[in-house]
Formats: sequence, structure tokens, C-alpha cells
Amino acid sequence: MGGAAGQSGFASQIQEVGPRDGFQIIERFIPTEIKLETIDLLVKAGLSKIQITSFVSPKAVPQMSDAAEVTRVCLERYPDSLLFALVPNLRGARGAVEAGLREVAVVLSLSESHNKANVGKSVAESVEETKRIRETFPDLRIAQDIATAFGCPFEGKMELPPLMELIHQLSDIGIGEFTLCDTVGTAHPTQVKTVFETVGAAFPGAVFNVHIHDTRNMGMLNTYIAMKHGAKGLQSSAGGLGGCPFAPGASGNTATEDLVYMLREEGFDTGVDFGRLLDAARFLKRHVQGNYSGHHIMIEEQE
Amino acid sequence: MGGAAGQSGFASQIQEVGPRDGFQIIERFIPTEIKLETIDLLVKAGLSKIQITSFVSPKAVPQMSDAAEVTRVCLERYPDSLLFALVPNLRGARGAVEAGLREVAVVLSLSESHNKANVGKSVAESVEETKRIRETFPDLRIAQDIATAFGCPFEGKMELPPLMELIHQLSDIGIGEFTLCDTVGTAHPTQVKTVFETVGAAFPGAVFNVHIHDTRNMGMLNTYIAMKHGAKGLQSSAGGLGGCPFAPGASGNTATEDLVYMLREEGFDTGVDFGRLLDAARFLKRHVQGNYSGHHIMIEEQE
Repeated sequence: MGGAAGQSGFASQIQEVGPRDGFQIIERFIPTEIKLETIDLLVKAGLSKIQITSFVSPKAVPQMSDAAEVTRVCLERYPDSLLFALVPNLRGARGAVEAGLREVAVVLSLSESHNKANVGKSVAESVEETKRIRETFPDLRIAQDIATAFGCPFEGKMELPPLMELIHQLSDIGIGEFTLCDTVGTAHPTQVKTVFETVGAAFPGAVFNVHIHDTRNMGMLNTYIAMKHGAKGLQSSAGGLGGCPFAPGASGNTATEDLVYMLREEGFDTGVDFGRLLDAARFLKRHVQGNYSGHHIMIEEQE
Repeated sequence: MGGAAGQSGFASQIQEVGPRDGFQIIERFIPTEIKLETIDLLVKAGLSKIQITSFVSPKAVPQMSDAAEVTRVCLERYPDSLLFALVPNLRGARGAVEAGLREVAVVLSLSESHNKANVGKSVAESVEETKRIRETFPDLRIAQDIATAFGCPFEGKMELPPLMELIHQLSDIGIGEFTLCDTVGTAHPTQVKTVFETVGAAFPGAVFNVHIHDTRNMGMLNTYIAMKHGAKGLQSSAGGLGGCPFAPGASGNTATEDLVYMLREEGFDTGVDFGRLLDAARFLKRHVQGNYSGHHIMIEEQE
């Protein structure tokens, strides 16, 4: 019944996305040193896989204009960490590769309207873009982010057949890793279970990660259910920093330290030092003003 | 994969505890009219079972000094609702009965130190107190709240054998309903599953409810797991109003509207109108200053 004695191996992997998903909606530019200090604390807390930035248009997202610099410093400092960046297109992938990265997350959305709003393309055009990235950089590790995989702010609940079809198309062009994103936080446990069971059975050679937004208080629940049904990478953000441009003020990402605490209590060795991770989240909250949905930092604040 | 079409009957029951667990830690006295207006909005939202107050020493908890008045008005207004109050002892039970209630939740803790701090008795003395209530009011429906059933702020993680032994003792004196409370929010999913499976198998005639605090972001997760493993009553608080005297500022109860939203997405008909419940939570947040952990009210605020 107690904590750490219960279970053994941790088959999943925590993927910290705060330095990208948390930072990208902060309007005021976060000094590069603060970004680097945050990443340093996250690495030292034991997080081995970190999405450190995104290579996007600096006009569209000025916050990420220091992507190359952040990448250069991190690659030098943490040669053993799994560092990756988000890219929306070939240009972004080229930037990431030129900065030295060997892995990117390429983003598209399952729903046409969100894909149009987010990357300015039809879904078919985005699939073509992934294909171009695949062909241009054959050695680059690619995880395909599928935003709005469960629900869309414009189109509502998403269905399974179009998701299966999209994964099929992407598999055909050589993509073997997918991150299913609940961009608006409307996924519910049975849906998450069904989706992961179905894609896992249909694509047994592929890797599926999960990225759940906590907008409606289901971040921990759905991440847990996804893990129980085969999700490999569990994406989360230190402090729960994040949000949604469509619901300002709303909670954003699932908080990494809350997730790590739960997994530790479940008896899993995630390799992360909870105390040091909490320190990292606290550092973040002190230095970057934003929406934090992490619960542990609320307790700590009062101590 | 969609929402409402999926599942059928809802075997559990939502028990709203905000007017007691949410209000009791608010220092500034909440005018009786605000309490009554809140309860009115909750009833109108379709919540059929509500813990409306507690009969405790007005010196210890001045906030609940209007318990008799709140009860009198509510019983008159909502003859068809299942209204109940929390009581720590025979004196409280007498107050509840005299005010006209036919059901109480009697509280004790599994851990000696918390029971001492909370009700000033040893656990054995508290069991005796429940026995006296049982004998004095044979027609009174009693649900036994077992606080710190999963963990204690002083003694840490709680084990299953003492919990089983305590339920056994209480069964022997005629108690058939139990609310297992995660008072400090440290319960984790596998623990919740094990506990509900074990008590359900050992006491097949008894009813077990769940009351999870959201302190460490596991409120929705553990409530869901408990429901999946036999919990009948799911206790929660509108707006997530609540907290913990041992962790000021920390999140309190699981938010009823977040729970109702999740259950609705799961395809359950809880009988609750989500929109009206959200209105009730918003009313509460406007009129009562406190810690709110509900996520939907954060979205709504910005709209």
C-alpha cells in the first residue's frame, strides 16, 4: 500500500516541454540566461529528455528568437541529454539541424481549422512538409506532434477514424513516433484509453507519446490513463507553466513535478529527483510571470 | 470516442460537501444568506445530496455557528434533497437531529495523532462515540467519515491492516457506510484501487464513498480510480473551494464542476446541469474569498 516499494521498472519516459510549450505564450521576452538557467536546473533534477525551444518564425513567436543560441549552449553543456525542439516546417527543421540538434518534433493538427490557424496550411500540406523534412534530413529523428488529436477548439470532439488515417499517411512516409496532443484539455479517460489501445494495436512498431493540457483539470488523470495504455513519452511542463491562446488564464500543461510525485508514489523510478525538480519549478515561478497550474508549488509557497 | 453517447447508467453519486468542507476553513464569517443562496444554486443545478453544514463547537469553528438555522431553512425548502451534516460527537449528532436531519457523517481519523488534533480523542474513544450516536439515535442514517484513511500529515502513509481493523470495529457496532478521506492529498492511484478493492471484497454489504483532496493534483485521478473500483459517493466541493490548515494556500477539494464535466464526457448522466453548476461555483467565488482549485472557473473568468 505504501509508495516506493510497490512497482518496478518505469516503461515510460518523462519529456519536459516547459522551455518550449511553457515559454512560447509568455509575451514578455524571457532573457536567454533565464531560459538556460531553467534548463540547467531541469537537467540537474534528472530530466533526461527536454524540448528546449522551437524553431519558428521570430516574427510570429519573438519569444523563441534565441532558439539557435539556446540550442548551441545546451548541446555543449549536456552532451548526454536527449534535447529536441519543435518545428512547424522544413525551414524550422533546417534551423534545428544547423544548430546541431539530431531530433525534432514536427507539429501539425488533426483538425483542418486548427492546423490552418497554427501553421497556416491544410493538413495534407503539413503531411507533405513532414515528408520533405524526412527526405531532406534522413538521419534526423522525427516525432510527429499531432495537435487536437482528441478535440479542437473550433471543431469540437475529434473522432478516431481520421486520426488513424493521418497516422497511416505519416507512417507511409517513414514516421514511426507520434505525440498525441490534447491541445484544449477536453480529452476524457475512456477516450484516451480507446485511442492509445487502438493506435497501439494498429501500429505495433510505432512509438506513441502523450501531451495533455490540464485546462479542465484532467491532466494528471489522462496522462495516467495514457501511460497505462501504452504511452511511452509523457510530456509535461515544470510548474505546469503554459496556457492556451484560446482560453487566457486557463491552466496549461500538466505539471512535471506533480506527475513525478504521483509516479514516485506509484513506486516508479523515473530517474528524477523530486526535490530538485520542485526547486526548478520554484525558480521558474520566481523569474517568469505566467499561468502555473502545478499544485506542489502552491504548497511550497506558503512554507 | 465522443462524449455523451458512450456509457449508460451512473452507478455512483456525487455528494457536494462545499457548504461544509469548503466553508469551514474560511475565517471571515460567511453571512447565512450567502450560504443559503449557495446551497440553493447547488440544489437547482441538480445536486441531490449535499453536506450543508456541521454541528461542531461554535467556539472551535465559529463559521458553522449557524448550523441549526441553515439546516432548518434547507429542510423546509428542499424536502426531496438528501441533506446531511458533519458531526464529531454525540452532542453534534443531537444538534443535527434536533434541527431535523435524518442523516449525519460522523468523523474520526484512522491515525491517532490526527484524530487527537481534529476531535481531541483517541481513535478508540471516537469509535465509542459513534457507538453512542448509533444507540442514541437508532433511526439516524450514519456515514462514518474516516479521515487520513490513506495518509496523515503527522504519521505519513497509512497502511491497509489498521484501516480494515477500524472498519471491522465500526461494522460491529452497526455502521454500514464509510467515507474514506484522503485528507492530505497524498493517496496515489494504485493505493486507492487496492483500498477500494479490498474493503469492497471484505465488507460486501457496506457502502464506501470517497473524499479526495486535490492538494497534490491527484483529486480527479484518485476520484476516478475510486469510482472505477466501487466507490458509491464521490465527494467534491463546488469551485474546488477548500484547503488544509496544515498547508495554507494549497488546493483543497476536488472541484464538483470539473468532476461533473469529466463524468459527462465519459457518457454518464449524473443528473447535474453542468452550466448551472458552473454558475453556482462562480457565484461562490464572487462572494466568498478562499482557495479555489476548480479549473473551469479559471477559464470562465476570462470570458
